[in-house]
Amino acid sequence: MAHHSRLSKIVIDVPPDGHDRELAFWSAALGQQLRQGEHYPEYHGAALHGQEIGLLIQRLGDGPGRVHLDIHTDDVAAEVARLEDLGAERVQLVDSWWIMRDPAGLVFCVVPEPGDALNDSNAHRWDG
Amino acid sequence: MAHHSRLSKIVIDVPPDGHDRELAFWSAALGQQLRQGEHYPEYHGAALHGQEIGLLIQRLGDGPGRVHLDIHTDDVAAEVARLEDLGAERVQLVDSWWIMRDPAGLVFCVVPEPGDALNDSNAHRWDG
Repeated sequence: MAHHSRLSKIVIDVPPDGHDRELAFWSAALGQQLRQGEHYPEYHGAALHGQEIGLLIQRLGDGPGRVHLDIHTDDVAAEVARLEDLGAERVQLVDSWWIMRDPAGLVFCVVPEPGDALNDSNAHRWDG
Repeated sequence: MAHHSRLSKIVIDVPPDGHDRELAFWSAALGQQLRQGEHYPEYHGAALHGQEIGLLIQRLGDGPGRVHLDIHTDDVAAEVARLEDLGAERVQLVDSWWIMRDPAGLVFCVVPEPGDALNDSNAHRWDG
């Protein structure tokens, strides 16, 4: 079974104290309104001007600020297994997505892309 | 005078010890060869599949690994001034680009895009 994946989101994770200021900064810096998520109100995001990749600002419960990457895929289980084989480690399952850690210890996520949004023209196809 | 800018690169900064492993991981994870820079051999990069945004892996001299964002612009001075007005701070000028810090303290860079690669269709236009 083949599946697809692509690097799809840049997520800026911000502790509560600095969140509103950070959100205002990046929205103005990029000239785009970052809309609050309905199901996940701790996220504000937008597609980036002229690009398929998107930016999210996430309000963290605690911990230091950081930037992390999201890989979107039409098969989370297959993609997580593929990345484990490459040396990444699972950290935690959150709802439908996996938090993972890359070989340098940096956190990234593997997130399901609903429907058939991913295809051979806009994502990498992995033949299993 | 108007100028343009856009979020253009995701940079994964890696200390020397874990660099080669990290580079191999992300190259395989994304299914793209990340080529070493000629002028700046501490960077390996590629445009991302189907997208205008690119990924770079940077070998750091020291300090912990992290992810940072690069904003590309056709007028570094104007863009840095604009971002300062929004609350960012200058950290250091490196060759032709500025390292800056956003309101949450996260590092990002403002990098000149040579030629007329940026225009109204692929970047945000700021009227000064």
